[in-house]
Amino acid sequence: MNSNDVAMTPPKADKATVRRHNLSLVLTTVHDAGETTRAAVAARVGLTRAAVSSLVDQLLTEGLLTEWGKTFSGQAGRPGTVLKVARSGPAGLGVEINIDAVTVCVVDLAGTDRVRLVERRDNRGDAPAAVLAQAARIAARAIESAAEQELRPVAAELALPGLVSGGAVRQAPNLGWNRVAVEGLFAQALTALRPAHRALPVGADNEANLAAMGELWFGDCAGGDGTARVPSFIYLTGEIGIGGALVLGGRLLRGAHGFAGEIGHVVVEPDGPACRCGARGCLEQYAGRAALLRAAGLDEATGAAGVAELARRAGAGDRVALRALESAGRSLGRVLSGAVNLIDPDAVVLGGVFPGFLPWLAPAADRELAARVVSGLWTPGSGRLRAASSSGDAARGAAARGVREVLADPAAYAERVAGRSR
Amino acid sequence: MNSNDVAMTPPKADKATVRRHNLSLVLTTVHDAGETTRAAVAARVGLTRAAVSSLVDQLLTEGLLTEWGKTFSGQAGRPGTVLKVARSGPAGLGVEINIDAVTVCVVDLAGTDRVRLVERRDNRGDAPAAVLAQAARIAARAIESAAEQELRPVAAELALPGLVSGGAVRQAPNLGWNRVAVEGLFAQALTALRPAHRALPVGADNEANLAAMGELWFGDCAGGDGTARVPSFIYLTGEIGIGGALVLGGRLLRGAHGFAGEIGHVVVEPDGPACRCGARGCLEQYAGRAALLRAAGLDEATGAAGVAELARRAGAGDRVALRALESAGRSLGRVLSGAVNLIDPDAVVLGGVFPGFLPWLAPAADRELAARVVSGLWTPGSGRLRAASSSGDAARGAAARGVREVLADPAAYAERVAGRSR
Repeated sequence: MNSNDVAMTPPKADKATVRRHNLSLVLTTVHDAGETTRAAVAARVGLTRAAVSSLVDQLLTEGLLTEWGKTFSGQAGRPGTVLKVARSGPAGLGVEINIDAVTVCVVDLAGTDRVRLVERRDNRGDAPAAVLAQAARIAARAIESAAEQELRPVAAELALPGLVSGGAVRQAPNLGWNRVAVEGLFAQALTALRPAHRALPVGADNEANLAAMGELWFGDCAGGDGTARVPSFIYLTGEIGIGGALVLGGRLLRGAHGFAGEIGHVVVEPDGPACRCGARGCLEQYAGRAALLRAAGLDEATGAAGVAELARRAGAGDRVALRALESAGRSLGRVLSGAVNLIDPDAVVLGGVFPGFLPWLAPAADRELAARVVSGLWTPGSGRLRAASSSGDAARGAAARGVREVLADPAAYAERVAGRSR
Repeated sequence: MNSNDVAMTPPKADKATVRRHNLSLVLTTVHDAGETTRAAVAARVGLTRAAVSSLVDQLLTEGLLTEWGKTFSGQAGRPGTVLKVARSGPAGLGVEINIDAVTVCVVDLAGTDRVRLVERRDNRGDAPAAVLAQAARIAARAIESAAEQELRPVAAELALPGLVSGGAVRQAPNLGWNRVAVEGLFAQALTALRPAHRALPVGADNEANLAAMGELWFGDCAGGDGTARVPSFIYLTGEIGIGGALVLGGRLLRGAHGFAGEIGHVVVEPDGPACRCGARGCLEQYAGRAALLRAAGLDEATGAAGVAELARRAGAGDRVALRALESAGRSLGRVLSGAVNLIDPDAVVLGGVFPGFLPWLAPAADRELAARVVSGLWTPGSGRLRAASSSGDAARGAAARGVREVLADPAAYAERVAGRSR
């Protein structure tokens, strides 16, 4: 092979860019390990001890890492100081607005849930601006609680049960919202309450997307060391409606327009009950919370109390309750078998009210999956249909998004802090 | 921000790696442009003229590029020689084994279909090994025809209507194949016929996956300059069965186990007709070719003649034919609306027999899509439901995979050629 020596464009990587990248590498490595030492970080990322020490010093100065005592490993060499990510400083704020509650959550850099405020309210009763103003009031209180723990949110993320793109809700049928500029309305309301929060960046996403990220980062699908044990899954939130999200290879599938994952509106029976989306026979009319309560002869307006009552009745062997859950499980299994045939994920994760009903839903769903998935991989007992872990929900997933950005580029965070104090 | 000067690991990129990458960059740029000049390539990729000239010289020596006369641009500077990718040399071999035909195709480096042999035969009648032996005989003849045009296949790719992974068909219900090691059997048969082909690498994939790549590379979804005009689409092959593939952001979604895209087995009616996959009421029992012919009162065994007759009858306004097509379109629309709600693609592309039936299928499918897709983006007339272009089929997509590898790493091709002649 001819290999003339010629002028070539070298790959662009100046020192500042490399250092910026390495700062993130070191911070993320400490984050994923939980606690570790400079030496272990150096071994893990393949940088020299000197390089790691310099990077750690900078991260300590910027308040993103902390040192915790000494570790005596019993091995040769001087004992290392234990490194952890900071428990104070940058935080993420998540605000989940659902049909019957607003949940606000603040997580620290480690992703730990440090503040959580839940207010039960019927959000269908008020205008969107009023709901967002109330959410901003709860968020302001959460920010105050966080400040008492020396945590300061770097970003706020709204989680909403509907189609969200470009900072607005395009449609949220169960809230009755259409084309609501949620990011702007929330930021305005928060600034009106606390002018100091004017600079807080506000984002918004579909709640199922954020619950799926919560599951990926904090739930049973997480591998514990920054890797995803279950990298591809379909996530369902069973609330009044049914939201969905697709995580493929550890990444959220947004779709061409940001509207992927709407499994609640896949058809079960073309001439079935009318759905709030305008079509008929959508899955959420068979397996959503309201449909489940109705089918069991319970008042769908009873919400969480009704859910508890349905589980109690099913546990006691009540035939109507069992039939309602089995029928919902069958519809769920039919729609899921189609989704699995299309996407071929590792697992289906059921969140919201579903985990509490799983003993009665799962057998019927499993039967449909076993009969209909052509790969033959979805036999009952395969463990592929599973309950969401309680540790990852939409509010926490939303809150974590902000701190994940700090992990991805700590230098940008430091520059923002420096800019603010100047 | 503190910016201590410290030891850092430089990004690894030695000269040989950079040159290897740049060879591909230049070859791909010429390929995508169709024809171009050294100067235009340099401007496009951001390398110096000298670097591009050296890389072009190497690609000319290796027979991957050719020069065609002079171009006088009317602009300052000396006229450039026109560069094109070679019309001889490396080629790809595609072998599509479907229910009632074997199609073998050879494409050159530009992706042009240079040899095509089609043999109609009922592949359900013979054992898999016999079908693969016959496919090998047709392939051997195609390789001979290609040699007369100075084309030499660098790889063979089999396209099969079923679940394919690890070089084997796991299940191809419409062929009646189960766990057939297709790559090995085909390679053996080809080597037995022509020992010289012993070294030809053989791959295998689902035919819908390869038809989708054909559409992405050569069809209306291609942008013409190497970019995809429609980067995300669901592709359906309407044959006896219905295969499917998902292309997301210009890449094939394979799924966690390689079985994504099986839209033909999404349920339409849970108690519908039995499907060859073992379940009931799958889409292909409503909109596959055999189901369409049956519903129209035609003999499903008539194959292509029956398809032509059905189209003729529909065109003549035959009520039974129109009702059969409308009903299939409705089922198709229901299943597609679910898939679109899940995946949110730019388009759905209908291949196989569907394009010929589109005038009668599409209105019913469009109505379902408009009513059921929650994003509201699938209104009739949106052009999102479209016929596959005739220029990209599974055989051509399969053939192109080999030459795409040469484009991605021309140095590896040159090394293999050098190894062979040593």
